[in-house]
Amino acid sequence: MASTKKVAENMLWGGRFTQGLDPIMEQYNASLPYDRIFYAQDIAGSIAFARANFNNGVLTQDEFNAIEEGLEQVKQEWAQNEFEIKPNDEDIHTANERRLSEIIGKEIGGKLHTGRSRNEQVVTDMRLWLREELRQIEKWLMTLIKTSVQRAEAEIDVLMPGYTHLQKAQPVRWSHWLLSHATAFSLELERLREVIKRVNRSPLGCGALAGNPFKIDREAMAKELGFDGLLYNSMNAVADRDFVFETLQWGSSFMMKISRWAEDLIIYSSLEFGFVRLADAYSTGSSLMPQKKNADSLELLRGKSGRAFGHMAGLYCTIKGLPTTYNKDLQESVEPLIDHIKTLGDSIQIATGVLSTLTINPEKMLAALAPEMLATEFADYLVRKGVPFREGHHISGRVVALAENEGVPMDKLSLEQLKGIDSRLGDDVVECLDYERAVELKDAMGGTSKSAVRQQIEMLNKTIAED
Amino acid sequence: MASTKKVAENMLWGGRFTQGLDPIMEQYNASLPYDRIFYAQDIAGSIAFARANFNNGVLTQDEFNAIEEGLEQVKQEWAQNEFEIKPNDEDIHTANERRLSEIIGKEIGGKLHTGRSRNEQVVTDMRLWLREELRQIEKWLMTLIKTSVQRAEAEIDVLMPGYTHLQKAQPVRWSHWLLSHATAFSLELERLREVIKRVNRSPLGCGALAGNPFKIDREAMAKELGFDGLLYNSMNAVADRDFVFETLQWGSSFMMKISRWAEDLIIYSSLEFGFVRLADAYSTGSSLMPQKKNADSLELLRGKSGRAFGHMAGLYCTIKGLPTTYNKDLQESVEPLIDHIKTLGDSIQIATGVLSTLTINPEKMLAALAPEMLATEFADYLVRKGVPFREGHHISGRVVALAENEGVPMDKLSLEQLKGIDSRLGDDVVECLDYERAVELKDAMGGTSKSAVRQQIEMLNKTIAED
Amino acid sequence: MASTKKVAENMLWGGRFTQGLDPIMEQYNASLPYDRIFYAQDIAGSIAFARANFNNGVLTQDEFNAIEEGLEQVKQEWAQNEFEIKPNDEDIHTANERRLSEIIGKEIGGKLHTGRSRNEQVVTDMRLWLREELRQIEKWLMTLIKTSVQRAEAEIDVLMPGYTHLQKAQPVRWSHWLLSHATAFSLELERLREVIKRVNRSPLGCGALAGNPFKIDREAMAKELGFDGLLYNSMNAVADRDFVFETLQWGSSFMMKISRWAEDLIIYSSLEFGFVRLADAYSTGSSLMPQKKNADSLELLRGKSGRAFGHMAGLYCTIKGLPTTYNKDLQESVEPLIDHIKTLGDSIQIATGVLSTLTINPEKMLAALAPEMLATEFADYLVRKGVPFREGHHISGRVVALAENEGVPMDKLSLEQLKGIDSRLGDDVVECLDYERAVELKDAMGGTSKSAVRQQIEMLNKTIAED
Amino acid sequence: MASTKKVAENMLWGGRFTQGLDPIMEQYNASLPYDRIFYAQDIAGSIAFARANFNNGVLTQDEFNAIEEGLEQVKQEWAQNEFEIKPNDEDIHTANERRLSEIIGKEIGGKLHTGRSRNEQVVTDMRLWLREELRQIEKWLMTLIKTSVQRAEAEIDVLMPGYTHLQKAQPVRWSHWLLSHATAFSLELERLREVIKRVNRSPLGCGALAGNPFKIDREAMAKELGFDGLLYNSMNAVADRDFVFETLQWGSSFMMKISRWAEDLIIYSSLEFGFVRLADAYSTGSSLMPQKKNADSLELLRGKSGRAFGHMAGLYCTIKGLPTTYNKDLQESVEPLIDHIKTLGDSIQIATGVLSTLTINPEKMLAALAPEMLATEFADYLVRKGVPFREGHHISGRVVALAENEGVPMDKLSLEQLKGIDSRLGDDVVECLDYERAVELKDAMGGTSKSAVRQQIEMLNKTIAED
Repeated sequence: MASTKKVAENMLWGGRFTQGLDPIMEQYNASLPYDRIFYAQDIAGSIAFARANFNNGVLTQDEFNAIEEGLEQVKQEWAQNEFEIKPNDEDIHTANERRLSEIIGKEIGGKLHTGRSRNEQVVTDMRLWLREELRQIEKWLMTLIKTSVQRAEAEIDVLMPGYTHLQKAQPVRWSHWLLSHATAFSLELERLREVIKRVNRSPLGCGALAGNPFKIDREAMAKELGFDGLLYNSMNAVADRDFVFETLQWGSSFMMKISRWAEDLIIYSSLEFGFVRLADAYSTGSSLMPQKKNADSLELLRGKSGRAFGHMAGLYCTIKGLPTTYNKDLQESVEPLIDHIKTLGDSIQIATGVLSTLTINPEKMLAALAPEMLATEFADYLVRKGVPFREGHHISGRVVALAENEGVPMDKLSLEQLKGIDSRLGDDVVECLDYERAVELKDAMGGTSKSAVRQQIEMLNKTIAED
Repeated sequence: MASTKKVAENMLWGGRFTQGLDPIMEQYNASLPYDRIFYAQDIAGSIAFARANFNNGVLTQDEFNAIEEGLEQVKQEWAQNEFEIKPNDEDIHTANERRLSEIIGKEIGGKLHTGRSRNEQVVTDMRLWLREELRQIEKWLMTLIKTSVQRAEAEIDVLMPGYTHLQKAQPVRWSHWLLSHATAFSLELERLREVIKRVNRSPLGCGALAGNPFKIDREAMAKELGFDGLLYNSMNAVADRDFVFETLQWGSSFMMKISRWAEDLIIYSSLEFGFVRLADAYSTGSSLMPQKKNADSLELLRGKSGRAFGHMAGLYCTIKGLPTTYNKDLQESVEPLIDHIKTLGDSIQIATGVLSTLTINPEKMLAALAPEMLATEFADYLVRKGVPFREGHHISGRVVALAENEGVPMDKLSLEQLKGIDSRLGDDVVECLDYERAVELKDAMGGTSKSAVRQQIEMLNKTIAED
Repeated sequence: MASTKKVAENMLWGGRFTQGLDPIMEQYNASLPYDRIFYAQDIAGSIAFARANFNNGVLTQDEFNAIEEGLEQVKQEWAQNEFEIKPNDEDIHTANERRLSEIIGKEIGGKLHTGRSRNEQVVTDMRLWLREELRQIEKWLMTLIKTSVQRAEAEIDVLMPGYTHLQKAQPVRWSHWLLSHATAFSLELERLREVIKRVNRSPLGCGALAGNPFKIDREAMAKELGFDGLLYNSMNAVADRDFVFETLQWGSSFMMKISRWAEDLIIYSSLEFGFVRLADAYSTGSSLMPQKKNADSLELLRGKSGRAFGHMAGLYCTIKGLPTTYNKDLQESVEPLIDHIKTLGDSIQIATGVLSTLTINPEKMLAALAPEMLATEFADYLVRKGVPFREGHHISGRVVALAENEGVPMDKLSLEQLKGIDSRLGDDVVECLDYERAVELKDAMGGTSKSAVRQQIEMLNKTIAED
Repeated sequence: MASTKKVAENMLWGGRFTQGLDPIMEQYNASLPYDRIFYAQDIAGSIAFARANFNNGVLTQDEFNAIEEGLEQVKQEWAQNEFEIKPNDEDIHTANERRLSEIIGKEIGGKLHTGRSRNEQVVTDMRLWLREELRQIEKWLMTLIKTSVQRAEAEIDVLMPGYTHLQKAQPVRWSHWLLSHATAFSLELERLREVIKRVNRSPLGCGALAGNPFKIDREAMAKELGFDGLLYNSMNAVADRDFVFETLQWGSSFMMKISRWAEDLIIYSSLEFGFVRLADAYSTGSSLMPQKKNADSLELLRGKSGRAFGHMAGLYCTIKGLPTTYNKDLQESVEPLIDHIKTLGDSIQIATGVLSTLTINPEKMLAALAPEMLATEFADYLVRKGVPFREGHHISGRVVALAENEGVPMDKLSLEQLKGIDSRLGDDVVECLDYERAVELKDAMGGTSKSAVRQQIEMLNKTIAED
């Protein structure tokens, strides 16, 4: 078969028996099974290239027209799943050109590749495809932030324990928790927009490595393809996969954020916490234990942060130490990228679905607030009376200790007991034992008071509106 | 549709529009698209489990017979690609049991899962499958080592430069280079055999997490399935993916070795070195440059070390910090494992193919030997005359410097010039300028002399014979 | 200064101003700041090498004696922190030899390095050092397992919820949880012993890359240094860092296990769970919140799994794609290794300290058991009455649902209500509502019954006794 | 000793013997050994915080003055290496406050921490420190680019082989190679500037997690400290290490680029290539082989890309899946960051030093050009005569094959032989055999012609001028 390569006859050194051919090598080398996803981009790039080769006189008007029409037909065949793959179609570029020549003849079809290399084609295809995918991801991400913000607005009255070290620390608004993650997401959104900007630069016209000898108008091609600018060195343009790597870095960074958001919700949906309950659509049961309701969606989101990281880590390793310029190793950037983008897109949508349909249990949240979480309020109370914070902190610590020793919640200590600890704890100290008050007192920017939370909502709304 | 989950009607918080269902979640959650690869293992495990449930009295003989026959039929359907997947078949376990009950009826089919959980099933399936794959990989790896050893025997007379820092260091045998990598591979082989031993332990009978309440005979099941032993704590057995992780660690370690072997051959096949030439079956040409012959196979081998590493790194991240016991995150171990095993299997075979069909250019290797590589011989010569090595090293350095200053190769310096540097360089010093002699002098164990190389061959032959 | 290298005078191309010298390069290149940790190993290796060079006639008895005595003095100087580092001491090998020649004179000192290379010295030093460190780690790990086992024996009566997906699944023994992690640790112990075996092989006598030309007796040197065997190819011996990488793979794998153990205990020590309480020695307070008691030790253990992984991932990247044989990149294996070993040693000891001093709250564990966790018992009850498991599972699910609808715990449903669901739920069904019974029923090997737990204890005791 | 924590007396469960104290835990927990590097930032942050607490009335003018003066003294002590560390100084914040109170007394010193938490302090310190470090790195990076550009301008006439797959592909200018890497660096420079922007946001005023209850003016503090803006959610501000992680992502991405630049130069400095020669300042010799000149600087640069990657990979792992908000795991971000920044700063400076002092060998570069590299020129020649490129490519391939069969370089084929292959190869075909012409023909933007190279130089000069 033409598509399989002959193994040298005199295979003297044992080795595996390949019968003069090595089908495993064929498959190891071929990228069509996955790069066919770029078929439309490959064709758009070829049309732009042919048009530029018409404008510089390499092609006649008729030749260009034939090529354009032929390529449109090839595109239709892919779109309608009618493209017939043949043995030598090792990648999407070869397949498209082969099919074009079948349609319009080799005399004209054979002119398409003038001054062009697959090295520039593959990066052009990848950048065009990736740009669109990232723009879609940007939209989905904005929806996730919007969903968080809307819940934060609607449920602003709900209080819950704020945690550090998974220990109850201070009361916060549920909305404040929502916005803490939405803020993290919005920083990733900001970064994503910068990534897109760098992805969307054109390598077309850079040849195999040295550039184009037919005075091709690179800027015109870039404009036709919607690129924002050019890559300015041909060797760099074909050798680098920085746009893939930066995307994987971004995606893995985002998934790290998602993993923490998911972790919180998994813990909050445990029976011991009981703050939230997932919609059935995002949970599953057990094959053995009828009572179980597992937060599979969240666990998959958390778990897939590893997958996303793995793509990035693997590609780092692949690219590290490669010599100038293109090396076949770089083909190993394609599959991780495609899987990464799918992982991200799915994950953002599922996170949004989970958040949209989650029910919260404000009573459980409230019940989880413990008077000890107000210990800092005692210290602050004393500060307002002129006591140095460190001393106030110490006194407050003794209040906590007394309650612990007496075996009662801190708010059940009598005024006398409190005063016994320090006489500056006056009658008004009981005000400290109000969760709502504690939350409202944090009204500096970024804090938990209603006004501070609303300010955050405004900031985030700007971020997702500005696009 | 029964298989898609209803999204709560009151989706108050914006979010993406899911029309009351979330098909993305279905697909995000489902493992059948990849875990169907375990169909035969799943069925073998089910038969063993049913047999054990017959032996402990849970099933009657007739029930067991019906189950066994039904499962054999299910297996046939998979093998002949006739198994019809239905909407609720989220994983291979569910699919097989669903189909079994269609064939033999729910009354008996519904008894299969007695005392069993998918948690133990999935690890049983994975371990059984992986054991076989690793045994195959072990065989392929032995063939790669064997091929290296056979070439080393046949081409023992060929000398080449040995490099450190990619600078010519001392002459070595080409065989010594071959065996240096074969030795690295053999250490991986040793390690692989230990991995297989740990993979091949049985979790069957551990239930969802707490064990089996029907006095099931775990040892009998393990024996039937060819396991070497049991996992001894049910929570550990279902929660851990250490066998996957250790496999990925092994595989990535092996691919690191392959990446260095490939790097050497890529450099050696550059025109500047020109020591080796790949068979056409393992090279490709350029779409733009007709003269190119690229070592694609080797570059892919090198590049895929990144892919293999990425699997491992990703899984580390996924498992890190998971609470006891099974969490859905662990599902993310399956796809990386399957891809890893395929990457490894293909890579070893291709490396073997490359090595089997490579042609070497002994003349170029010889021509690349430079007299300066014998500088150490001068130092050693002086040592034999009682000069301290450090002084000999210094004198030898002056010989190198003189040749450099005179602009002649070191072996073109006259005896007078040599003696002018140090009078202890006698007439017999010219013997130092013999590459073969230098190579033969290194005859301590592990060195480059023929006898030392042959000793290595013997050692390696033992390693690949012992299985 | 002799130790800084001259930068070419004609620095035409801008570049940073280095005033003819580059101190940053000095420091970038030097390894003495960290490889001095190997001083004793370096000296032991040198003595063994000198003795072998005496036995083969390169050194006289007097020369050997002088070298041995001199090196002992150098060792003393290091041990007493009196070794004076000089500008050209770029690594421990250079420093030791320089000092030796100062003590015994260059005439003899200059003979030490005969037939030897720093390439073989550095791996010899690292392997000797690492072997001892790993043996110490093995001991600490055995103590951790022993501590787990002893608690498991002593607290075998304590029941707690077993979790999957962080949801209450089935009751288990606290001991069973302890042993689930101890089992994971013991599998790592098994693996560690294999790693040590591979670490403890001798590269000494391999030269720079090509072997030794003075008929040195490698086996005698290996024996003197306590190695278990030789590395059999000189190029492999000096080029590979597989022993470092395998150690880092092992260490990171172990830390992954620790991260899960820590995660469990962090969750269990939250106020919402409240199962365990850390000793003060392993907790800290808050600078702002007086009531806090944070499980810092566990969080550091969990966090350092990332550090351990980072070492391993970084080294993979460093070694990947390096050409034959030694390249300076390999120097980057030393610092990660030293930090890794310290991280591991500290972590195992701290984990042991945490576990030794932890107090448990059996009442909270018991209170956390929920009747719904016995739902499977209902299904099993029905199975014992001949109902197919799937049907039993369904009926049991209806019991759970009824309790949920009625708003009562499952064990508060009346017998009538139960029988209303399915008539096969007889009077004896209430037996199902006994946690202890449920736990004892799982008495197949690896299960939660006392006998099954004791069997695990026996197995583990064997593992830690066998060394 | 007050600084070591008591281990519970009743250590019932074996475990390691800690004699009632655990010094290892002390050291495991303490961050002062490395976070002391932030002393100046910590003090600047404290002064800004105190000033804001004066402005909102928490402190009096006198109190603020005392605090400011006291802190300035503490800073002096650090700067002059006179700060005395005491047992309880577990971190820089504690140490500074402890010392302040010693100087100005507890009455006022104890007020410093009012409304503040170490959680916000540590991130403030880290961000301030990192901002300055990254600005320094930006400058160094600009110098590296400038050095590349200056050499490119000066050596624009030098031709060399351009490689793909490490095979000779097409002739390029040495300058074009220089600029290909400079372009990669400039894209990293662009990204770095975005990272700095995100690093330089203020968390100060966010408290432990919930915000500040004393109406502190966060914007004023941010302005005083030179921050560009605020972090807008207190929980996010204290919990996230995204600024560290993004820095490590950037740094590892940059080091990946450096690893490829180094790889090229390592290969080019091999004797087989011989294109470049490193200055002695950046090379080293061999302890065994007097003739060696090793490119240690470049190998370290390449190797340290692994180290940089390891930091990033490790931190990903550490942060992944952490619950809200601060957890002690995050302490593990500090050491990797510090080492990363040092690695980067050193590496950029060394790369610049290497490039500044490198000598090139234009003759060797020219000699390495092979006529076969002009095969594409033949195809392009035919294209200009109207032959479809694919046919031209085929004919050109036959020319290569003929030369190979005849055993002569392609440029030694006679005109007759060429015409014998295809009659369209006219007398003027010999023009194709001119390397300079081939290079000049690539004059589309980004190509190898002088004008195209000069255009790149202009672009890059803008990038490094704009700051």
